[in-house]
Amino acid sequence: MDAALSYAREHRARFLDDLIDFLRIPSVSTAPEHAADVARAAQWTARHLKTLGFAVRIEPTSRHPLVRADWLGAPGRPTLLCYGHFDVQPADPLGEWRHPPFEPAIDGDIVFARGASDDKGQVLIHIKAVESILRTAGTLPVNVKFLLEGEEEIGSPSLATYVPRHRRALRADAALVSDGTMFSPGLPTITTGLRGMLYTEIEVSGARRDLHSGQFGGAAPNAVAAAAQIVAGLKDRKGRIRIPGFYTRVRAPSPAERAAWARLPFDEATFLRDLGTDVAPGEEGHGVLDRLWVRPTLDVHGIGGGFTGDGMKTVIPARVVAKVSMRLVPDQRPERIFLQYARFVRRNCPPGVRVEVRRLGSASPVDVSPDTPPVRAAARALQEVFGKPVVYAREGGTIPVVAAFAHVLKVPTVLVGFGLPDDRPHAPNEKFALTNFASGIEAVIRFLHYLAE
Amino acid sequence: MDAALSYAREHRARFLDDLIDFLRIPSVSTAPEHAADVARAAQWTARHLKTLGFAVRIEPTSRHPLVRADWLGAPGRPTLLCYGHFDVQPADPLGEWRHPPFEPAIDGDIVFARGASDDKGQVLIHIKAVESILRTAGTLPVNVKFLLEGEEEIGSPSLATYVPRHRRALRADAALVSDGTMFSPGLPTITTGLRGMLYTEIEVSGARRDLHSGQFGGAAPNAVAAAAQIVAGLKDRKGRIRIPGFYTRVRAPSPAERAAWARLPFDEATFLRDLGTDVAPGEEGHGVLDRLWVRPTLDVHGIGGGFTGDGMKTVIPARVVAKVSMRLVPDQRPERIFLQYARFVRRNCPPGVRVEVRRLGSASPVDVSPDTPPVRAAARALQEVFGKPVVYAREGGTIPVVAAFAHVLKVPTVLVGFGLPDDRPHAPNEKFALTNFASGIEAVIRFLHYLAE
Repeated sequence: MDAALSYAREHRARFLDDLIDFLRIPSVSTAPEHAADVARAAQWTARHLKTLGFAVRIEPTSRHPLVRADWLGAPGRPTLLCYGHFDVQPADPLGEWRHPPFEPAIDGDIVFARGASDDKGQVLIHIKAVESILRTAGTLPVNVKFLLEGEEEIGSPSLATYVPRHRRALRADAALVSDGTMFSPGLPTITTGLRGMLYTEIEVSGARRDLHSGQFGGAAPNAVAAAAQIVAGLKDRKGRIRIPGFYTRVRAPSPAERAAWARLPFDEATFLRDLGTDVAPGEEGHGVLDRLWVRPTLDVHGIGGGFTGDGMKTVIPARVVAKVSMRLVPDQRPERIFLQYARFVRRNCPPGVRVEVRRLGSASPVDVSPDTPPVRAAARALQEVFGKPVVYAREGGTIPVVAAFAHVLKVPTVLVGFGLPDDRPHAPNEKFALTNFASGIEAVIRFLHYLAE
Repeated sequence: MDAALSYAREHRARFLDDLIDFLRIPSVSTAPEHAADVARAAQWTARHLKTLGFAVRIEPTSRHPLVRADWLGAPGRPTLLCYGHFDVQPADPLGEWRHPPFEPAIDGDIVFARGASDDKGQVLIHIKAVESILRTAGTLPVNVKFLLEGEEEIGSPSLATYVPRHRRALRADAALVSDGTMFSPGLPTITTGLRGMLYTEIEVSGARRDLHSGQFGGAAPNAVAAAAQIVAGLKDRKGRIRIPGFYTRVRAPSPAERAAWARLPFDEATFLRDLGTDVAPGEEGHGVLDRLWVRPTLDVHGIGGGFTGDGMKTVIPARVVAKVSMRLVPDQRPERIFLQYARFVRRNCPPGVRVEVRRLGSASPVDVSPDTPPVRAAARALQEVFGKPVVYAREGGTIPVVAAFAHVLKVPTVLVGFGLPDDRPHAPNEKFALTNFASGIEAVIRFLHYLAE
């Protein structure tokens, strides 16, 4: 182990070169014109793992390929399944980047690039930890399977069917997922819960065609007004979601979890200052961390239709689409919530218009017990590297595959993020701390050894 | 007069050629790239009127020029002010036109082109009536002043200051405005009221930047949700506008007007079938004609911001703009309503976001007495041409200059539209009936003579 740690320190500069190389690939999975780049990123990781002696396969899907790579040279020892993704979010709005998003720029300890934190930097932590051990010991303390995908940013549609179909091939004793953040800089964090998600589209149709508000205003259905009414009706004045049955299966966190959170260095004033608001709107009677982690939420992402250009146009819009998503918590089930939601939306559709409700994607919420051998091994590794006891926190976001690991593979998952809360994933000027890149590699080297014990 | 009527009949084919020529000019006033075309349309009308012996001036404004043309060869006789506009609405969505919008197509009695009904066809009715009299009698029975603008479709901003500044030059005994429709085909109609209008923009700002709904959903302000809430809160469930004081100055129509409307050939079922809905949403307790003519209304035209593309993006929008306009009725005043509206919007702004309310344009409502000598002269002319008694109806739309004629010039205005209710002004496949073009010219020839009596 010590040899591997030394190797990692000695090869730091080369590891960084590899990271920059990886970040140059504009593997934007939502954009059809970048499909070849996503494939290139898949090949990049595949080549890397092949060089290390992994048995690698690139699996085509209906959209972007996924990469599986196995090193099974430790029979009788536990098997670890490492998950990550090589696709990235779109870079727009481009004008807000200080450096071009796919020309990584280093400034002190920071690398700026799309995908630096989410998730290429963290994928490379796993790969470089494995390299460090293999290049020094010639073998790994446990068996390792990589499962890397290029569709995380579009909701992991292919993995949803791939994981159940390859249950046996993916069988493992623990899974390691690094696609998130530490609670605050220097504070090693294991994530014990992720919210699920349900993404929907509401289409409202009024008259046969757009109408002139002079000629028809007062007696014509207005699709945008109806959509506004439907959307506004989804929550009450206290921020509570009005869908009947929505909260029925919401589970409260354990007293132990709550007590641990109370000790976290969370400052609401700093949080609000960062957002640029003076109040955190949300469900009355729940603190900010509860609202982010253990309470389900609903957000409208946009209402598209009608006239929104400069100046005046007096159109009564005939058709409009609204995007609405919910973040779900244990034990809410997306399928059931969708039915309750769709029924509620249809019931609140005002007269004179028709509404259609579509489900665009969903993922189950998950909670991870902090009391499994893999999590204990990870906690020990993290504490040694960062010099502080691990904190256990939840995350408000969603990693669709983790639900499949929990419910389909039934493997205990270790969620260890090496990003920082201000890394700006999905936004301009995404960044990643190089100290976290290095510490992450050391932590994973240790984790692999402790997992074998 | 008979000679003029014969002349008009004999030159029908040439008049149509001129109309087609006029319609070919894409004088879209909202589009900066069409500014030269609007100027070209101004020159087209100026040249035409100059050939007829009018003293013509093209007046530059800060945006599009207006045209004034005077024939004052009948001293001691009344003076008529003819208003119309040579600018047109944008043609988009282009894909829905059966013929290109600026390549006029004739199909039987119908000409299809942007601006055919609104308002080039009707402007040319006035010009061709004057031509028919001048070319046969060498003189007109009354003095005639033309006031033609290129900014009607952007709310007549220049006329708003031009009319008060040129009170004396525009002085007249009657005004004639043809920029609307007959109540139904073959039914000569004089309009006795127009709604005014107040066009606003609401800008809602939440967090400093767009946020990720996984990371922040539940504790972050959502600008689109706030805009939806503000917009939905503008009306109650019965379709009544909730702005305090909004209805205070709304005047009910006279019993005589109401009685006349009851005899109009209005069929609610046909109206709804045309719209493609089964109910006419609107203010409870008011019939459809009341909702369109004598009740003020409020419409949202669009909410722009956030994500509205294909697929899923989990953004919490930081900023959004909604376009909201109101149609006003006598004796509502746009300035006062704007203050009441802005106060109400600000008061309904949910916590965590800021709102800005801007007025983009406004026009006062007008009502026109049917009991003035010019209106009686018009009624006689129309009845003779169409063979039916005139009906008196209101229109729900707005012609900003008419308020200035009433309140600034204090001249009785005759509102006679020769369009048909299904002419689709502002929409694809705008059309105009050639029989109405011909009948309109005859009616205006007669009107000019009866006005002199």
